[in-house]
Amino acid sequence: MSIITLTTDFGLKDGNVGVMKGVILAIAPEVQIVDLSHQISAQNILEAAFILHRAAPYFPDDTIHVVVVDPGVGTDRRPLAARLGPQYFVGPDNGLITLWLIHIEEKGLTAEFFHLDQPQYWLDEVSHVFHGRDIFSPVAAHLASGVLLRELGTAITNPVRLEFPHPERTPNGWRGEVVYLDSFGNIATNLRFEHLKEQQVTTVLLDSVRITKMVSAFGDCPPGELVVLYSSTGNLIISEVNGNAAQRLCVKVGDTIEVIVK
Amino acid sequence: MSIITLTTDFGLKDGNVGVMKGVILAIAPEVQIVDLSHQISAQNILEAAFILHRAAPYFPDDTIHVVVVDPGVGTDRRPLAARLGPQYFVGPDNGLITLWLIHIEEKGLTAEFFHLDQPQYWLDEVSHVFHGRDIFSPVAAHLASGVLLRELGTAITNPVRLEFPHPERTPNGWRGEVVYLDSFGNIATNLRFEHLKEQQVTTVLLDSVRITKMVSAFGDCPPGELVVLYSSTGNLIISEVNGNAAQRLCVKVGDTIEVIVK
Amino acid sequence: MSIITLTTDFGLKDGNVGVMKGVILAIAPEVQIVDLSHQISAQNILEAAFILHRAAPYFPDDTIHVVVVDPGVGTDRRPLAARLGPQYFVGPDNGLITLWLIHIEEKGLTAEFFHLDQPQYWLDEVSHVFHGRDIFSPVAAHLASGVLLRELGTAITNPVRLEFPHPERTPNGWRGEVVYLDSFGNIATNLRFEHLKEQQVTTVLLDSVRITKMVSAFGDCPPGELVVLYSSTGNLIISEVNGNAAQRLCVKVGDTIEVIVK
Repeated sequence: MSIITLTTDFGLKDGNVGVMKGVILAIAPEVQIVDLSHQISAQNILEAAFILHRAAPYFPDDTIHVVVVDPGVGTDRRPLAARLGPQYFVGPDNGLITLWLIHIEEKGLTAEFFHLDQPQYWLDEVSHVFHGRDIFSPVAAHLASGVLLRELGTAITNPVRLEFPHPERTPNGWRGEVVYLDSFGNIATNLRFEHLKEQQVTTVLLDSVRITKMVSAFGDCPPGELVVLYSSTGNLIISEVNGNAAQRLCVKVGDTIEVIVK
Repeated sequence: MSIITLTTDFGLKDGNVGVMKGVILAIAPEVQIVDLSHQISAQNILEAAFILHRAAPYFPDDTIHVVVVDPGVGTDRRPLAARLGPQYFVGPDNGLITLWLIHIEEKGLTAEFFHLDQPQYWLDEVSHVFHGRDIFSPVAAHLASGVLLRELGTAITNPVRLEFPHPERTPNGWRGEVVYLDSFGNIATNLRFEHLKEQQVTTVLLDSVRITKMVSAFGDCPPGELVVLYSSTGNLIISEVNGNAAQRLCVKVGDTIEVIVK
Repeated sequence: MSIITLTTDFGLKDGNVGVMKGVILAIAPEVQIVDLSHQISAQNILEAAFILHRAAPYFPDDTIHVVVVDPGVGTDRRPLAARLGPQYFVGPDNGLITLWLIHIEEKGLTAEFFHLDQPQYWLDEVSHVFHGRDIFSPVAAHLASGVLLRELGTAITNPVRLEFPHPERTPNGWRGEVVYLDSFGNIATNLRFEHLKEQQVTTVLLDSVRITKMVSAFGDCPPGELVVLYSSTGNLIISEVNGNAAQRLCVKVGDTIEVIVK
């Protein structure tokens, strides 16, 4: 049984996610559909890219990830399907795959990209405003049913890639950026375990706030304490134990952090 | 494998949607359950009717749509099951099917209605406050398992129908109403493609705001622009490109719009 | 086909619930996964316990309930699997099962508890911050696939139990507590049908508000009226017909209520 995951900025009220599932199940009745997130901030491609690349490695081979964050729907942006290592992506060609693709390339796996241009695999009527329903859902369902990528479109080699901020070395450590705030208020940065390796973090500076408690689990400090630790996917994060660090510190994505190491 | 969709005003926190799924799967373990929406505004039958009738056409034949927006639960309002063309409805008889039924009748399809009065297809104990769990979920599951509609209840011919506002002609166009605000802040009106046909919209007036950009896709204008276009289900909508028109214009459902055509 | 339910305080935005489903489906592709709630207030074990014990009885035998509200993740709190009557629990040993276990014991059913200490049933890498993904999801999937509880861990007899407030008799009735506010604003108390039995409630006092309308269904009084009735799971609740009693009365969990009976 194939798995199709769905990630959108549609929210859960309007029924549009349900409609995509109806379209998928009409073509591929046996598929398992998993919601990854439908609360991506409206039109926020970077946020969807971040959530997708963190989640994809935990899904089995042949999983098809449909992502519809699509400010260019109805314009000439290309509809895309791709194979990234052992899994698939279906969605607009606007950079959504960037972080996942970097990960795939770092692991030495191959990727293939196809411009979706075979309307026989779409709904009969295609609107200018909802390709998630009219193109991406039926394409994913046909892929799950055994249609090959190369039947769904024409091979291309230049999918859109977005620039993501990289951390930089400083005299006594690193300068990075806040890249995600999760629902607990954990502040995720773009500094990763691979950057710091055996370097020991002594202080994290976020605007004028100094945090000096480095822990390995939230429960290592009492509630209310600000701590620094690695997230479950390897990013350096700043948290308040049993609290909401993002709210307390009024942090937003893009803010600078300084890390001092020894 | 049958599909059962669920639409409620329960929200997703309290576990009541999960309970309905438990009840369904205990009777029909192989069914595919799809959430259409659980964020209908509390007791808002019109809103649920709007979301249901937009979504139903995208589901395969024999899909069973369970809708529980039920301010009259425990009173003498009838529990209902219906066949609308090739699909099914299960829920309270309070008008939830109105728009979908109009659509079915316009297409010349048949519909049948049954007052659910056979408690052997319900849970053993039926509360006065949660028929979604005690009556509608088990009935839908039995229907998915092959029980016939006429075994579940007694045929009736007078399901409750609600009045929905119709657009009216004006000397230079149409007067309509706002009928739905979606999670992107798109403002959907009750003016549809079928009303306007080859008439060309030149201006939309919403209170004192004039909108004159008619586009076919969101990306046809720069971010921040107010535009008018057709939604993916054929309603005339007012949108802000990459923004939230409903918030910006302080619009609410029921507000009047004027459309000038040439 | 086995059922696994998921209850967490993760919210639905960050993709972490989807990741748990990916992990489960990689091990047990045929399982039915049901979301019970992912909007438990952060770290609120009592709230999760309340939602779990209300929902579990409606699921079929052998259902596996995974609950991840886990402020102690990464510390020495034990990971737990349990059999409670005919169903299973998997999650941290922090009291989440308390109310459900009381219910099981009252019904004279047996329960067994196992400290999860067999890492061969976990993901290869176990983080200090996300045991929902690394331990509880794979354990639940192996349990669904036929691995026995005693293979997953070591039997224990002292799972953590939390104290929940009990209602007390007063000269003319009962004194209880608000234990849950649902998404409709219904105010659930810890006074239950079993306490009151044939006693007739004449008045409920909540701070300085007196409520004297006792009804059996919401629709028995006109919109806006404050009423007292039994919830679908047997708790005495205070509601505003078609309104939000919790907001109107500024109630919070833990507030005292007085019930006068005759």
